[in-house]
Amino acid sequence: MPRSLYLDDVTVGDSYTTDTVTVSADDIITFATSFDPQPFHTDPVAAESTFFHGLAASGWHTASISMRLLVTSGLLADGVIGAGAELAWPTPTRPDDVLRVRSTVAGITPSRSRPDRGVVELVCETLTENDEVRQRMTARLVVFRRPAAAG
Amino acid sequence: MPRSLYLDDVTVGDSYTTDTVTVSADDIITFATSFDPQPFHTDPVAAESTFFHGLAASGWHTASISMRLLVTSGLLADGVIGAGAELAWPTPTRPDDVLRVRSTVAGITPSRSRPDRGVVELVCETLTENDEVRQRMTARLVVFRRPAAAG
Repeated sequence: MPRSLYLDDVTVGDSYTTDTVTVSADDIITFATSFDPQPFHTDPVAAESTFFHGLAASGWHTASISMRLLVTSGLLADGVIGAGAELAWPTPTRPDDVLRVRSTVAGITPSRSRPDRGVVELVCETLTENDEVRQRMTARLVVFRRPAAAG
Repeated sequence: MPRSLYLDDVTVGDSYTTDTVTVSADDIITFATSFDPQPFHTDPVAAESTFFHGLAASGWHTASISMRLLVTSGLLADGVIGAGAELAWPTPTRPDDVLRVRSTVAGITPSRSRPDRGVVELVCETLTENDEVRQRMTARLVVFRRPAAAG
């Protein structure tokens, strides 16, 4: 995985994969208690008789874990700044999933009004060890050009 | 705000507004430390000289707060189950923002294969007290029909 990229360094079709993180049942319950307090996300026993047939992470937890993986990978020099995103959760994150994010550059649009930046469309899949897709995201990121050398 | 709705109770154009929640600088820093550790989300001083010109919440924090408001409002009888969402963050959440979510039903698609459910497209705006839009989300939710009475 490359690090500290600027807009100048990115080409459509480039692909990057982050490190992995293991998600525990406790992680799932802690996040959901704060942000998505529903039995299928907070109570392993009650979750059995729900739509999810067992404890499942909030989609927002999967999104937040994916963001942490992208940020801590150090991919972009000026940070991961999202203008928007489209998300799908084909399957929920489960306890003991080992997740990673595989990203592919799908588009690059230089800003017309601000020559120091552009928008990069990044298609990010959050995958388990068995390549089950937990999240598919198309993110629109503000990415800056490499600063000009001091004159 | 109505509570415990089933698919049968929902009509295109219906609109609902949640309670409010106040977001503190500590909330912003705590979330970002776990899920989006970048200086503009974690360090009020360093944030001044960034893209955001001051401490700003992670977009995923705004999304997660919005989810909590939707869930704790008790709108849907069988819970808020997202199949996917489209998000935009026109402005970031700031310390001391008082947020609420205003939702409008934009579409209802009964499932062809499973007569007990459908997908509701809900347009959700996360707004401040001054109606600044912090997040615009179109969510696709799995919503169940009212169970038939026992025969």
